[in-house]
Amino acid sequence: MKPTEIQAAKAKAATRAGIDGRPVVFVIGIMLSILSTIMALPALADIVTGHPDWRVFIGAASVTAFFGIALMLMARTDFNAFTLRQAFLLTTVAWVVMAAFGALPLAFSELKLSYADAFFEAMSGLTTTGSSVIVGLERASPGILLWRSLLTLIGGFGIVAMAIAVLPFLRVGGMQLFRLESTDRTEKVLPRAGQIIASIAGIYVFLNVVCAIAYWAAGMSGFDAFNHAMTTVATGGFSTSDASFAKYDSPLIDSIATIFMLIGGVTFTLFIRAAQGDPAAPLRDSQTHVFFGVFLAFSLAITIWLVLAESRELGFSVRHAAFTTASIITGTGYSSTDWGVWGPFPLILILLLTFVGGCSGSTTGGIKIFRFQVLFQIGLTQVRQALQPSGVFIAKYGGRPIPESVAQSVLAFVTLYVFSWALTAAALGLCGLDLVTALTGAATAISNVGPGLGEHIGPTGSFANLPTSAKWILSAAMLLGRLELITVLVLLSRRFWSG
Amino acid sequence: MKPTEIQAAKAKAATRAGIDGRPVVFVIGIMLSILSTIMALPALADIVTGHPDWRVFIGAASVTAFFGIALMLMARTDFNAFTLRQAFLLTTVAWVVMAAFGALPLAFSELKLSYADAFFEAMSGLTTTGSSVIVGLERASPGILLWRSLLTLIGGFGIVAMAIAVLPFLRVGGMQLFRLESTDRTEKVLPRAGQIIASIAGIYVFLNVVCAIAYWAAGMSGFDAFNHAMTTVATGGFSTSDASFAKYDSPLIDSIATIFMLIGGVTFTLFIRAAQGDPAAPLRDSQTHVFFGVFLAFSLAITIWLVLAESRELGFSVRHAAFTTASIITGTGYSSTDWGVWGPFPLILILLLTFVGGCSGSTTGGIKIFRFQVLFQIGLTQVRQALQPSGVFIAKYGGRPIPESVAQSVLAFVTLYVFSWALTAAALGLCGLDLVTALTGAATAISNVGPGLGEHIGPTGSFANLPTSAKWILSAAMLLGRLELITVLVLLSRRFWSG
Repeated sequence: MKPTEIQAAKAKAATRAGIDGRPVVFVIGIMLSILSTIMALPALADIVTGHPDWRVFIGAASVTAFFGIALMLMARTDFNAFTLRQAFLLTTVAWVVMAAFGALPLAFSELKLSYADAFFEAMSGLTTTGSSVIVGLERASPGILLWRSLLTLIGGFGIVAMAIAVLPFLRVGGMQLFRLESTDRTEKVLPRAGQIIASIAGIYVFLNVVCAIAYWAAGMSGFDAFNHAMTTVATGGFSTSDASFAKYDSPLIDSIATIFMLIGGVTFTLFIRAAQGDPAAPLRDSQTHVFFGVFLAFSLAITIWLVLAESRELGFSVRHAAFTTASIITGTGYSSTDWGVWGPFPLILILLLTFVGGCSGSTTGGIKIFRFQVLFQIGLTQVRQALQPSGVFIAKYGGRPIPESVAQSVLAFVTLYVFSWALTAAALGLCGLDLVTALTGAATAISNVGPGLGEHIGPTGSFANLPTSAKWILSAAMLLGRLELITVLVLLSRRFWSG
Repeated sequence: MKPTEIQAAKAKAATRAGIDGRPVVFVIGIMLSILSTIMALPALADIVTGHPDWRVFIGAASVTAFFGIALMLMARTDFNAFTLRQAFLLTTVAWVVMAAFGALPLAFSELKLSYADAFFEAMSGLTTTGSSVIVGLERASPGILLWRSLLTLIGGFGIVAMAIAVLPFLRVGGMQLFRLESTDRTEKVLPRAGQIIASIAGIYVFLNVVCAIAYWAAGMSGFDAFNHAMTTVATGGFSTSDASFAKYDSPLIDSIATIFMLIGGVTFTLFIRAAQGDPAAPLRDSQTHVFFGVFLAFSLAITIWLVLAESRELGFSVRHAAFTTASIITGTGYSSTDWGVWGPFPLILILLLTFVGGCSGSTTGGIKIFRFQVLFQIGLTQVRQALQPSGVFIAKYGGRPIPESVAQSVLAFVTLYVFSWALTAAALGLCGLDLVTALTGAATAISNVGPGLGEHIGPTGSFANLPTSAKWILSAAMLLGRLELITVLVLLSRRFWSG
């Protein structure tokens, strides 16, 4: 046997024996330690403003640090890279554990949330969904507001890093289209991860700072500006006020938010290329073109409806149609006005937009633009094939043929998406939610958008009054959508555990 | 040039010049002539009962016969078989023209429907949808009631014949799985059509007669029994009363309807095999198993909800849950009670069932069971592939591997289904329909089910009060769903016409 064959045989034997969980536990230990360190920031904010919740943050940080360090010590092991199964396991477990510990400060703060509520809120932040169960944000301590923003910031970064460095290797939902070419031939995950993650981190911090400065210059307080920047670029949607962006009622602030939400919807690797001396890289990308095309088309359709059918002023219509479209397509979920009263057509468009999402490798959720591009190409091929059964037609993406396996992955992903939506809605119906709340609640959770439709969870409503069972279901749906479904579902298969 | 080259060049020129439409026009002429003959039956019913509407039927029959004969004379041509393009064209055009002429008696009867309403009603009958714009069926003439049933009867037969003899050759949505083996190698359509269609016709008439006798024996009037039989086996849903099956309030009649709706959801070729001496053929078919499994699962879930959450009696719950599940899954659309008041969970299940449909080659609409089977197999394969990227896993249907092309066809079909639903709902929103009416109206039309949800188009409502524009959109959606989407969409491609 050649050395590579021996290595392959060894890897196979290791796989058959089940999964070595130690590297997974070890990394989760590291993540918890980092999380506990970050909790010092809101503690500091509450100390500075003299709010008693600082004790909660110190307590939560201690508990989190204890578990983090314990896990690291327990699972100390030598490893260079993850196996495929370890990567699957880590991806899902990390998100759940981070939410479970991220919920601690919320559960023990003066808001007196139940643990279900606190977990929902933490998961909503980490998955950059932005649905909230807190009513009366104005009364929350600065520390709590900052913590919600920080969870979103961490989540948004985690998603981009995962989408660029992990998902393509897991071949999830056609993401294999975006494997980095130089690492195409390995089944080991994360070989160049450190390098990529460092570049992403730099760009991510840069965008957040620019966004915060813009908000501040446009009239927000410094605290509001930084909090909103963290939930804008991450396309999260948490605000420091129940009124969201309607509080400011400023066309300038709305415009800044619209622009940075859209930036959060673009593939982040394109920004790396832009930073490396090719500033036009994002503008040449076909996915970016379609993304902005969809944004413009929906903004225009809603604007026309508002002017003609609802007799609103043109200025109002353009501003809020653009803001709302950007907010929903990127899954941010801010509202600049109550679009719940815009009549049936915009509501249906907003529900459809909920599923769309931004580009691959961005902070957005949803089905994502490249999958629609692939679907369109497959559709064209099918029509040609139907007309000329003996012909050979090949769907292309970015000038290259789409491999059969990718086409099937994408199609299966979209189908699975619709199924997950339907099942989540049925489960919510079982909890007693009405039809519109169940359907749109399931959609907004799976796509990590934020608001649904209807009086309860619409743009001016809150998830607070839903039954506890529904909150757990929605938390699970947020995770499922965030991890692109298959990553989670693989763990449910018997094959995963039996090898 | 050699003679063969000249011939080839000529053929090529003919193709480039477009499609020879004469065979299509000729067959439509034949169809219209048959339709006009069938109009004699309701005319007779009105003459016998002394209702003045008989004149309308004679008039409509004359007009239809005139056009039918004119088209036949105009397009007389020698032809043995259709080309693929002619088959696509015929399939769509035939349904539109039949609805356009089938609407005539409805438009000119004492009901005084607008032509849009009459066309909607005729399309609803021919596509076996069963949505109605007529309020006050008790006041309609017997001829009109019979005509609605006859349209459903014709439509149901047309669908089965098309699904067995035409769609597999057009490779629409994975229907190529059901090509008859002996004709696998030809691109010409309909070679054995005559033979198959005759067998189907025999079985279809037999089932209708048995169903009518059962209804009559259970207490329906002879007229009601025959009308309902025609709309039961065809899974249409038109009733002779606004109250549908609630008028009879008979557990026996409900049970008969449930059984025959389910029979209408089974692949008809299985009945041919049963008639040819293999009576157990339908019971051995995996699609039939899944179909009945889904029926039982949804009936059970709704029954449990009705008993536990709504405190209904067990007898009531079983009876109406089974009836409603059968009615929706097969796309019949009868109602035995107002299920609109059953609470959120059953409503969501009913909305999901709207998309399911029965088996391939039945009279039902919707996505259909075999596609779910194929999807499930593809899903399993994807999970295995994700866990073991170097392995080769093959999805199977009926013990045989599913060809890549079929897998992609099915996946593309389901995706396209969801898209068509979304676009139809958006178009209905543009007409001013509220969210629930738009979403469920689009679903019920594309899946050819009948009722939607909400106060307007729910089980006790009517489509009468919708705006005219919405009726045209819904008529188009019924056709689109009935012809399995791709058949219609192919006609919209430039390639179809340019060659």
